[in-house]
Amino acid sequence: MKIAVIGGGSSYTPELIEGFINHYWELPVSEIYLVDIEQGKEKLEIVGNLARRMVENANVPITINMTLDRRKAIEQADFVTTQIRVGLLEARVRDEQIPLAFNLIGQETTGAGGFAKALRTIPVILDICKEIEELAPDAHLLNFTNPAGIVTEAVLKYSNVKTIGLCNLPIGTKMRIAQLYDVNPEHVEFEMIGINHLVWTTKIMVEGKNVTDDVLKKASYTKGITVRNVPDFGWDPLFLKSLGALPCSYHKYYYMPNQMLQDQMKAMKGGEIRAKVVKKIEDELFELYQESNLKVKPKQLELRGGAYYSEAAVNLMTSIYNNKKDIQVVNVQNKGILPCLPINCSIEINCLIDKEGARPIQPSENLPTQIRGLLQIVKAYEELTIEAAVRGDVDMALQALSIHPLVGADVAQPLLAKILNENRRYLPQFN
Amino acid sequence: MKIAVIGGGSSYTPELIEGFINHYWELPVSEIYLVDIEQGKEKLEIVGNLARRMVENANVPITINMTLDRRKAIEQADFVTTQIRVGLLEARVRDEQIPLAFNLIGQETTGAGGFAKALRTIPVILDICKEIEELAPDAHLLNFTNPAGIVTEAVLKYSNVKTIGLCNLPIGTKMRIAQLYDVNPEHVEFEMIGINHLVWTTKIMVEGKNVTDDVLKKASYTKGITVRNVPDFGWDPLFLKSLGALPCSYHKYYYMPNQMLQDQMKAMKGGEIRAKVVKKIEDELFELYQESNLKVKPKQLELRGGAYYSEAAVNLMTSIYNNKKDIQVVNVQNKGILPCLPINCSIEINCLIDKEGARPIQPSENLPTQIRGLLQIVKAYEELTIEAAVRGDVDMALQALSIHPLVGADVAQPLLAKILNENRRYLPQFN
Amino acid sequence: MKIAVIGGGSSYTPELIEGFINHYWELPVSEIYLVDIEQGKEKLEIVGNLARRMVENANVPITINMTLDRRKAIEQADFVTTQIRVGLLEARVRDEQIPLAFNLIGQETTGAGGFAKALRTIPVILDICKEIEELAPDAHLLNFTNPAGIVTEAVLKYSNVKTIGLCNLPIGTKMRIAQLYDVNPEHVEFEMIGINHLVWTTKIMVEGKNVTDDVLKKASYTKGITVRNVPDFGWDPLFLKSLGALPCSYHKYYYMPNQMLQDQMKAMKGGEIRAKVVKKIEDELFELYQESNLKVKPKQLELRGGAYYSEAAVNLMTSIYNNKKDIQVVNVQNKGILPCLPINCSIEINCLIDKEGARPIQPSENLPTQIRGLLQIVKAYEELTIEAAVRGDVDMALQALSIHPLVGADVAQPLLAKILNENRRYLPQFN
Amino acid sequence: MKIAVIGGGSSYTPELIEGFINHYWELPVSEIYLVDIEQGKEKLEIVGNLARRMVENANVPITINMTLDRRKAIEQADFVTTQIRVGLLEARVRDEQIPLAFNLIGQETTGAGGFAKALRTIPVILDICKEIEELAPDAHLLNFTNPAGIVTEAVLKYSNVKTIGLCNLPIGTKMRIAQLYDVNPEHVEFEMIGINHLVWTTKIMVEGKNVTDDVLKKASYTKGITVRNVPDFGWDPLFLKSLGALPCSYHKYYYMPNQMLQDQMKAMKGGEIRAKVVKKIEDELFELYQESNLKVKPKQLELRGGAYYSEAAVNLMTSIYNNKKDIQVVNVQNKGILPCLPINCSIEINCLIDKEGARPIQPSENLPTQIRGLLQIVKAYEELTIEAAVRGDVDMALQALSIHPLVGADVAQPLLAKILNENRRYLPQFN
Ligand SMILES: [Mn+2]
Ligand SMILES: [Mn+2]
Ligand SMILES: [Mn+2]
Ligand SMILES: [Mn+2]
Repeated sequence: MKIAVIGGGSSYTPELIEGFINHYWELPVSEIYLVDIEQGKEKLEIVGNLARRMVENANVPITINMTLDRRKAIEQADFVTTQIRVGLLEARVRDEQIPLAFNLIGQETTGAGGFAKALRTIPVILDICKEIEELAPDAHLLNFTNPAGIVTEAVLKYSNVKTIGLCNLPIGTKMRIAQLYDVNPEHVEFEMIGINHLVWTTKIMVEGKNVTDDVLKKASYTKGITVRNVPDFGWDPLFLKSLGALPCSYHKYYYMPNQMLQDQMKAMKGGEIRAKVVKKIEDELFELYQESNLKVKPKQLELRGGAYYSEAAVNLMTSIYNNKKDIQVVNVQNKGILPCLPINCSIEINCLIDKEGARPIQPSENLPTQIRGLLQIVKAYEELTIEAAVRGDVDMALQALSIHPLVGADVAQPLLAKILNENRRYLPQFN
Repeated sequence: MKIAVIGGGSSYTPELIEGFINHYWELPVSEIYLVDIEQGKEKLEIVGNLARRMVENANVPITINMTLDRRKAIEQADFVTTQIRVGLLEARVRDEQIPLAFNLIGQETTGAGGFAKALRTIPVILDICKEIEELAPDAHLLNFTNPAGIVTEAVLKYSNVKTIGLCNLPIGTKMRIAQLYDVNPEHVEFEMIGINHLVWTTKIMVEGKNVTDDVLKKASYTKGITVRNVPDFGWDPLFLKSLGALPCSYHKYYYMPNQMLQDQMKAMKGGEIRAKVVKKIEDELFELYQESNLKVKPKQLELRGGAYYSEAAVNLMTSIYNNKKDIQVVNVQNKGILPCLPINCSIEINCLIDKEGARPIQPSENLPTQIRGLLQIVKAYEELTIEAAVRGDVDMALQALSIHPLVGADVAQPLLAKILNENRRYLPQFN
Repeated sequence: MKIAVIGGGSSYTPELIEGFINHYWELPVSEIYLVDIEQGKEKLEIVGNLARRMVENANVPITINMTLDRRKAIEQADFVTTQIRVGLLEARVRDEQIPLAFNLIGQETTGAGGFAKALRTIPVILDICKEIEELAPDAHLLNFTNPAGIVTEAVLKYSNVKTIGLCNLPIGTKMRIAQLYDVNPEHVEFEMIGINHLVWTTKIMVEGKNVTDDVLKKASYTKGITVRNVPDFGWDPLFLKSLGALPCSYHKYYYMPNQMLQDQMKAMKGGEIRAKVVKKIEDELFELYQESNLKVKPKQLELRGGAYYSEAAVNLMTSIYNNKKDIQVVNVQNKGILPCLPINCSIEINCLIDKEGARPIQPSENLPTQIRGLLQIVKAYEELTIEAAVRGDVDMALQALSIHPLVGADVAQPLLAKILNENRRYLPQFN
Repeated sequence: MKIAVIGGGSSYTPELIEGFINHYWELPVSEIYLVDIEQGKEKLEIVGNLARRMVENANVPITINMTLDRRKAIEQADFVTTQIRVGLLEARVRDEQIPLAFNLIGQETTGAGGFAKALRTIPVILDICKEIEELAPDAHLLNFTNPAGIVTEAVLKYSNVKTIGLCNLPIGTKMRIAQLYDVNPEHVEFEMIGINHLVWTTKIMVEGKNVTDDVLKKASYTKGITVRNVPDFGWDPLFLKSLGALPCSYHKYYYMPNQMLQDQMKAMKGGEIRAKVVKKIEDELFELYQESNLKVKPKQLELRGGAYYSEAAVNLMTSIYNNKKDIQVVNVQNKGILPCLPINCSIEINCLIDKEGARPIQPSENLPTQIRGLLQIVKAYEELTIEAAVRGDVDMALQALSIHPLVGADVAQPLLAKILNENRRYLPQFN
């Protein structure tokens, strides 16, 4: 079995390699191609060599290949994963800082930051898809590249590649609920419904018992049900009760925007926006990765924010490869399972995973009205963003920002001008 | 033909009476019952006497009846109109001021103000509907009571009364476009799509020629396409071009919230919030109405904001009565004509008017994504508001405010507490 | 204004010319191009010369052109009408006789006969559409060519031409109801819902009064509500009551197949299948058309079956040209107005006619279950037929016949073989 | 755990008891209540005593209770199963013979026979549901009573009981495919889509390989993929190829009606209609059941037609009880998973089974048009039948028969009269 890892020079790669090593017994990978662009060559070398030491140390017969030739990596691959960042971390710094200059949330996947990232990323991903269509038409593309929901939808709409979008938030939520109840994660079941980074957990069962209301109470006081890169403000208990579902970490940008914005403003003033924190962590990680006696994934990687990332990725490949028919929360095409959203959009939802990919399971309950409304407007923003990215259409870009609940028409024009200008190297479609 | 005017003591009534007089030749009304509540008795007398002088002066055989007995007014009526304000203008003052205290738009139909008005109004309207079901089951209920879209939807969901919701904004828009092109309003056709006070004009034909793009350009510079009670800031031309449709006056709260909020803040500081301006106008109007030599609708009523109100109302009754099969923009049940909205919600759209009421005509084009998203979230807010109002459900009320684009979860709790508290006399369902 | 009449040599053409003459005052046609194929040259001459005598006699300034050059006829036309019969009347004879050989209804638009006609006709119509796209992109294509619903749907799916499908059955129904109540047809209103030649009248108003139930009673006894080319068996009164709507003439094939089949069998044995009757009438008509002193539409044309055909056609053009906004029952794209049918299929329904074409009006009531089921299976047959015709796909052709209520899987294979074989000259897509 | 078996005196009961015995290790049933009506008392005794011998012989601690008191049986039950036959086998004889007298297919679940059975059965099942709502509101009702799809839909529409409809056809299909490929049934996966007794297998995987096309070829020649009570005529290979899915046994009534009707006619003339064959088998079975040394399910029961019936039933209970999250094909509410059918109808489809019941999994592919059409018209028939049964509405009953592909309007009236007359003892709602 051949795996192509596009953006293989990422600091996350050792996480993924660890996953392949641990699951080798059920997922017999023979070849991994780490591929990156010219500017990432040095990092690719560092990460690739660490990966080789890791597989050697673990004594599994996986060959690690490093290459700048993307076509060679993709050719005949069984799985292609993408974890690219067009414009590198410098672009992320801008994604986070530009909105803050307009007094808006600056976040790399949500709001104006995620919008800018989508415009840069979608054309590159669609180029990759053309190569997959040609060189590995049966491959599954597992997309981790953010904004994962938007990118996955672009692939579903504009290519024939089999694709699934993946985020570590669902598995992280399961882990934290398991901790909360002190049970094995296997005994936690839940239904998540929504779109990537805007997904509600509508039903939670622990050891076969419905504990949804109890989690909503606990979540109000217990901090901890949040991903690392989102500040951990507790939820208001009355709000959660009225919502009737557990929001995800990124919901805080929508449900407590003032607090979140103040927090970001403070961080920015302290020079500590998330992109810079991450950049520092990354620099340290690559320092570490070069130590030739390092032969396992270093503990420090966990600070980077990708907890359970390899678990999510390798679980998905394993279930596909072994036709497991288990349930995982991933990003797939709606096809009518959520009738309130367009038939051809991407959604994040419980799916049955088998040899053919992922198919949604009908939710137990209809989506509550309060969830539906927010979901619909953010999905409309996503659709506009995809069209703007694919066509280079300034009008659609302007409307995308205008209707986003965290941006608005008041500020959309100068904000868009700045985003297009500061990213112009990466936005050929707008020139 | 018998007409029941509920809230007959309103300052608008002379407008309506004028309409009945002017259209008597095609709408042979024999009896008008003006009905009001005990507290409105004095105003009812004043308005009723003016109405009598008006019909006498016009020499039409219409009998004007004044009564505090609502059942008597409704019994056997052919048309029932409602123009009530639960809590009187004092409540409107609060509707406008409470949100401003939270730094939010304060408006009687949009946002938190409209929400409070809906909670107070829906139970009263549903009581009226029960009486119509009993006493005049074939009557058409023409609802002008704001928030007209929400109130109409509540009636559609919780009664069997035949109802149409009506606003003067569509006819006003037609009049202003006619002025813009210096043509007879008959030569203006348009498609309006949306929900009450959030309705887009997606296509405009003047003398059979599609002038939509031209109107969008003109609308950017020309002030004047706006209703009287919304400040007349011009639209940004690039924004209108990207939107591809003409927004309505109330869209300014959504598309230029900062400017609108500042304007309201300034007005409040100057003691000039709209409710107080209106109150002053009303006081002057009632002064005027008492002059026994006044025998026609006074010019000053136009300042009140209800321009074309009688025209809209009487046009609708006339078309129903005469089975005219002409097209008017009114509020009716969706029933699938806008597939992006719930099947049973109210929408504001071009309808064919005939003996049986109003039926939507399929729009020329699918709704653009940028319109769909905003429409969906505001409709979700409306649905939650109706459920909260009918059930007295605090959780739904909290979520309604939380997802409203002009309110938000950050501030919803204390805001709701204040609204419930200050309106508690009129909200028995929450006690 | 230029009109292109494709299949201009048809015996129906004088009917159409009469319509243009009578409505000249409101539809100022300057040029009519009658175009036909080489084999129809002689008939074209005869009909064209009659048309010239008609306009001259009527003293209207319309130029009649005859041509075999279709491109020249289409170029810059305002309206294109099609009334073609691929394979001529000889093909119709086969369409009617082949099914009878399998003990099945043989009818030129319904069942296996209509299926064969669709396979022959769709590719030719789509060729015409390519020319319209190129030479007259703003033209309205009014399609009378049968099976009109299927042909219209093929155009809607596979071309960009603005098209409306038209049948004389709706206007004929109105006329007969007017006769039944002895009123002016203007005082008859109705809602028709369905697909071409399978359309139910669900609501009938005469002089503003709902007489639906009364018509159902009358229709049971009164023969006469039927088109000329379908035998006039009366409906069973209990059946009509339980159906709750007035079926159309072609429904008899579905609701009384045994009686209809026996009638056809008898006709065939007597050598009097409809195609042959029509052929004889046509021969006589062309004899008549050649008389140089004939300067008006001859009375005998009415026997041909196209009553009100010119009225329907000219009414539609007049309403479009004059932006009349009146209501006509025509074939258009569903776009969700009947949620039980595919979004992109053709339906026959009350439409508002204006400058832009035809837009459905929402029906008063949801479609009754008994109507929905039959409508859905016949529409599925139509969709399969279109795909089979466009792709030359034998599997889809076989399934189309297999699910048709008047054919069935039992007999579909030998029947299809015979149809493909006997029509092979006109079915290049299957070779 | 308590099980209530309504219709416990059925000859099938030993099958079910065997299932409970075999699965006792994972489904710890403590009490089984066999309940029947007065007329079935004797059979109940016989079957109940055999059941007692069976559990004793197997040495499992299950208590068998026999009762005529349905409320006592239902009270606090965890699972309620129904396997009733209103009117006993005598009614089935009539269900099969009446249609044959009209030259129509006579079958106890399909066509006019199933229609009659539905009219008799639905009111009784809804009575049972009222008792479950009162006495065992958390129980799962597993409905085996035919017509299972129609009965399940009636329960879903007219009660609040949690219900799943079950048929042995899906599991039987799996078993036969396993035989065809000589593999363990565990290695067969498939997608079945449709409604009860009209369900297509659209995708078949054996040992992880898609063998759908191969099965379609094999199914054409190999007899054997059919249930015992439907004659085993082979499918035509070209027909199956064009269909693109494996039909179920009952499809033969729709796809080869002539052959099936002739077969039934022959059987009737020979006095061998299925009902009489079954009656004879039953008599022999009850003879056998009385032998006191019989302590296991007798081999002869297999002739009765319920192969894998206990397997299907106990599998479902086991998966619910153990929250297994495996996939079974059962009858549940559509809720939009098949957008071509009404939201609230019952469908038969692959479901995930867990503690809460069954939830559909999104099919891999959209339903082909040829399947959609037939499915829709038969579902419309089912909806009309349910309404007719619940309301005692003759008009709906007449329309139900009129649109059924195996009946038709030609014959519906005298047929309905005969059905209502001959079943009048069991149809109080029509009197
Ligand atoms: Mn993520
Ligand atoms: Mn208004
Ligand atoms: Mn026709
Ligand atoms: Mn069955």
